[in-house]
Amino acid sequence: MGRSPVAMEKILSGDRVAVARAISVVENGEGGARVLLRSLFSRTGRAYRIGITGPPGAGKSTITSRLAGHYRERGLGVGIIAVDPTSPFSGGALLGDRVRMAEIETDPGVFIRSMASRGSLGGLSRKAVEAADVLDAAGKEIIIMETVGVGQSELDIAGAADTTVVVLVPESGDSIQAMKAGLMEIADFFVLNKADRAGAEQAVMSIQMILHFRDPADWNPTVLKATASTGAGITEIAALIDGHRAHLEASGALEVKRRKRIAQRIGDLVSETLRVDFWSPERKAMLAARVEAVMQMVSSPYDVADELIDHFKSR
Amino acid sequence: MGRSPVAMEKILSGDRVAVARAISVVENGEGGARVLLRSLFSRTGRAYRIGITGPPGAGKSTITSRLAGHYRERGLGVGIIAVDPTSPFSGGALLGDRVRMAEIETDPGVFIRSMASRGSLGGLSRKAVEAADVLDAAGKEIIIMETVGVGQSELDIAGAADTTVVVLVPESGDSIQAMKAGLMEIADFFVLNKADRAGAEQAVMSIQMILHFRDPADWNPTVLKATASTGAGITEIAALIDGHRAHLEASGALEVKRRKRIAQRIGDLVSETLRVDFWSPERKAMLAARVEAVMQMVSSPYDVADELIDHFKSR
Repeated sequence: MGRSPVAMEKILSGDRVAVARAISVVENGEGGARVLLRSLFSRTGRAYRIGITGPPGAGKSTITSRLAGHYRERGLGVGIIAVDPTSPFSGGALLGDRVRMAEIETDPGVFIRSMASRGSLGGLSRKAVEAADVLDAAGKEIIIMETVGVGQSELDIAGAADTTVVVLVPESGDSIQAMKAGLMEIADFFVLNKADRAGAEQAVMSIQMILHFRDPADWNPTVLKATASTGAGITEIAALIDGHRAHLEASGALEVKRRKRIAQRIGDLVSETLRVDFWSPERKAMLAARVEAVMQMVSSPYDVADELIDHFKSR
Repeated sequence: MGRSPVAMEKILSGDRVAVARAISVVENGEGGARVLLRSLFSRTGRAYRIGITGPPGAGKSTITSRLAGHYRERGLGVGIIAVDPTSPFSGGALLGDRVRMAEIETDPGVFIRSMASRGSLGGLSRKAVEAADVLDAAGKEIIIMETVGVGQSELDIAGAADTTVVVLVPESGDSIQAMKAGLMEIADFFVLNKADRAGAEQAVMSIQMILHFRDPADWNPTVLKATASTGAGITEIAALIDGHRAHLEASGALEVKRRKRIAQRIGDLVSETLRVDFWSPERKAMLAARVEAVMQMVSSPYDVADELIDHFKSR
């Protein structure tokens, strides 16, 4: 705690080392994470958060880096959080993609952080949002959260943005099917990337067809075509994000969205705290002992859960 | 509760209507779910559970239905749980796939149930495993859990099986990349489906290359080629599942796996119970009131979470 005020100052001034360290504290769930986030919280809320999601191979990282370049030209600071095992930002992709990222990676106005989507101790969506808070407090005006859009927690992350963009490619036929069940609900608009490939027009029509069945709302998602590798369509994507932002601000929908996000956030914090409180060494040992009884069919998981909860409540 | 013993009898005898109703109770999380599952539990543990997962469009459902046909020929009862928005079992796919499913769907020795992977109130992986318990208690010797293998909870479901098969196609290049981060950890073996397509050999080599970097273990996953639409490779898949099962039983690894599954199961029950206990109408109202203070930056999500937890503990 002694050195915490110094670090805080540095984080708020956007110092890269301090920001990187702060995100590590958050990601590893270290003891100081909550103290840090609590102190930073009052300095958040100024950044605009953009979620970019879609199936593997749709070109999300290329769009992300092109968009980052666009915002840099407008003089805005950009933070990128990549929660995507296939993202070049996460080291998961081919050399060509990596080279393409080099330009923005060396720009001091851009901060990129990749977060593991598996093997972590859980709470990934909470941690990704907390990392975005650090970047927000550090003064980044635009925060892009890139996730692979098939899993629930990845959808949660992208869905926690102010504007969520779903990226598809002409080959995404099956993903378009899957969309009905997931991506559809969170998309503020769609980008059909690699639009120079065969099947682009049919893919756009398929998406529009599905959109047609969506309940009418005050904002209706559209489909934009892009070829991110050449930069084609990026200005249009940025314009649509601007338009969506203006709509959210004017209609009061941004407030509603952020209110929901706060409630969700509090719920996540409660779950995490209860989980840690509950699994004391004593109850962990009880669990280990009771598993054997369940294996022998002498007890059931339901009996053991009840016993553990009674023990927790009787403290 | 009055009619519950009657239903129990019927479930255990495999009555389709009773089994379907029991799974609905589980899926909707109705009040009687826990009572039901607790009573059924001592009759579970006889079924062998197979997880089938992979990216959308890999042909998981075709493999599932062919495998089901194979087991039926061996005189075994089969239960199928499809947690996959792109699965024909879930109504998410094209007419052709649906037609292909018709044969097993009308076989009284096969019970198929699809579960929504989104829009549910959470706890999907728990509910899918509970549905498998119902089928297990109802006497199905083989239970196949089909999930789309990109999301964490879908991986959890497939990973909760005794044998987990990851299905890929020659076009799964990007998914093979993603695999390193997820599918790889849960696969007992791989099936390269649609092996009559171009690029099949390269895909097999890519998978083998990645497998080569895996830590050596007492069971080393291999890659099988199949063309499920014609039935080619299905006998080999079933033989490899048999071989894996024999290995697990002989080495004691099956017990270890099931012990882990029970511990996981108890943990899930505890989380669910705590969540329900915590979010009483009173604390829900507190949350709603405090969100406004956070919006005004007068409070933070961390302060509110602490306050709610103190309230919970002081009861």
